[in-house]
Amino acid sequence: MDPGRVIERLKEIKAKRILLQLPDGLKPHVFDYFNELSKNFNVIVSSSGFYGACDTGTMDEWKNVDAVVQLGHTEIPNVNYKVPVIFEEYINEDHRSFNDLDLTELERNNYKNISLAYSIQYRQSAEELSKFLKEKGYNVSMGKHDSRLKYDGQLLGCNFSPLHDQESRNDCHIIVSTGVFHALGAQLSVEKEVFILDMSEPFRLRSMKSEAERHIRRRYANMARALEAKKFVVVVDTKVGQYRMKLAEKMIKEIQDMGKSAVLAYSNESSPVEFENMMADCIIFTGCPRVATDDFDRYKSPILTAQEFNMIFKKKGNGKYIMDEIVNVDTMP
Amino acid sequence: MDPGRVIERLKEIKAKRILLQLPDGLKPHVFDYFNELSKNFNVIVSSSGFYGACDTGTMDEWKNVDAVVQLGHTEIPNVNYKVPVIFEEYINEDHRSFNDLDLTELERNNYKNISLAYSIQYRQSAEELSKFLKEKGYNVSMGKHDSRLKYDGQLLGCNFSPLHDQESRNDCHIIVSTGVFHALGAQLSVEKEVFILDMSEPFRLRSMKSEAERHIRRRYANMARALEAKKFVVVVDTKVGQYRMKLAEKMIKEIQDMGKSAVLAYSNESSPVEFENMMADCIIFTGCPRVATDDFDRYKSPILTAQEFNMIFKKKGNGKYIMDEIVNVDTMP
Repeated sequence: MDPGRVIERLKEIKAKRILLQLPDGLKPHVFDYFNELSKNFNVIVSSSGFYGACDTGTMDEWKNVDAVVQLGHTEIPNVNYKVPVIFEEYINEDHRSFNDLDLTELERNNYKNISLAYSIQYRQSAEELSKFLKEKGYNVSMGKHDSRLKYDGQLLGCNFSPLHDQESRNDCHIIVSTGVFHALGAQLSVEKEVFILDMSEPFRLRSMKSEAERHIRRRYANMARALEAKKFVVVVDTKVGQYRMKLAEKMIKEIQDMGKSAVLAYSNESSPVEFENMMADCIIFTGCPRVATDDFDRYKSPILTAQEFNMIFKKKGNGKYIMDEIVNVDTMP
Repeated sequence: MDPGRVIERLKEIKAKRILLQLPDGLKPHVFDYFNELSKNFNVIVSSSGFYGACDTGTMDEWKNVDAVVQLGHTEIPNVNYKVPVIFEEYINEDHRSFNDLDLTELERNNYKNISLAYSIQYRQSAEELSKFLKEKGYNVSMGKHDSRLKYDGQLLGCNFSPLHDQESRNDCHIIVSTGVFHALGAQLSVEKEVFILDMSEPFRLRSMKSEAERHIRRRYANMARALEAKKFVVVVDTKVGQYRMKLAEKMIKEIQDMGKSAVLAYSNESSPVEFENMMADCIIFTGCPRVATDDFDRYKSPILTAQEFNMIFKKKGNGKYIMDEIVNVDTMP
């Protein structure tokens, strides 16, 4: 973080009291940040975990501050934040050369036209990889972002619009990131092959195809268990960037029209046991789609995304798996 | 729950949209409650766990409703709820006779004058026990409640004012409850012997003395680990009935005056790992005191109540353990 820039922006909006959100990786520095910012402002830290710009803390936390300072992420342009939020992006400074990157995977498949994308902290690395691939003779492009993203080529775990923009024009996608979170979501959302370049490991291109196929099989098994469900809980997450109340209310009606029973519920970090106690046959989670796609093992009942619900109860997708991507959310009341 | 009475009260205040909070024990009936109330109101259920009348959900949940319906608890009179909350007490209907209750524990100690208290759902049972003990020749009284409680003799896990009222006038205390939660807190807060009558077990009087002593020894060990701490996180819980911001701000200043470093943090169901990431030497938790006294094993750093902080850093208590009881909280901004 550049405290100077954050302080300047806070002074511009005449902030006095601020809420500070730190990602896990920066939490060990919380005393430094707190002491530095406290010279100019009345600071309170949010101790809760958060998952990005979709989550600026609970209203109890931000209602009484002049600004939220969130480190490590970039704003979601089409979210209506109800308090000024100062996002301070964290750009990874790993400048290892890509010169030794093994391109056999691309050559073997005769992939010449590459769609390149990244999670936000690797924007710089993605630019460097683009340059390297172009020098090697590849056509490289970054897909256009929709209004939930700030940059072309940027991905969120819930939004892969730059890949859809490129899907018909390129041979494959390469995702620059750490861990499989973004790349797995990417391969669930597009058909062309997705390669991850994991910046936390020695550089190599690894196909996500088989991992995504395994994952989809497990999702179909989870969905199959929901087919006979009679009691549904449809969950709306109260995080500002995950709030899809209209979608949830529409689904409640659809479930009732099928002659089944549906309860509408709020969630914010609810633990799986809270849903177990409700004895529902199926949970439809309209907040972060990755709760259902990645964490379903933690739930006893089947837990589906809105799109998975559409696939099995409304015959959407023509047999193809549809990743639930968030394009926009409702403005919170 | 008597839905009729709840519906009547909701209609009186012309509620249209309501938030429903169910304790774990009633969650299996959520579909019944939801369907019944949905005939008259626009209902949304809070899926989060809650701990009583100190917790009416996050502001994100209640900001958009006309009323909260909370089952199983009774209001905390001196909490300034910012939305109408309809508390529907749950009275346990266990009418087993106390006739066979073994009173040897009282006789052996020559305890004649009894202070009787209860957790809210056993108010009726406590009355019946009182009658039984009086017939056996005991003097029985229920201590006066302070403004955080509604009834004489009622206890919360954070408030034992009826026991303090009786401490000098009676020989011992009997707590009618389930599990040791209330009775252990009681024995941590008073010196006279506390007996639990656990309604979930065959009736008997069990002394809490040795369990509380063991517990206090473990608390002192935790407090000793905090003595050398240099970096403190002082936590304010955003639950409406646990919000003690002024206390936390005062402690921040006291810690800084000792030449140590302190960070002010919000919490609402933060997991222990969030605090671990902050690399603090000590956590002071000003929300529910039972987080520190009962759950400290889940935290790597020592975690203290406000009173425990006072004991070790401000030499309060004259060597006697002081239970951190909540008398009142700040009104949330």
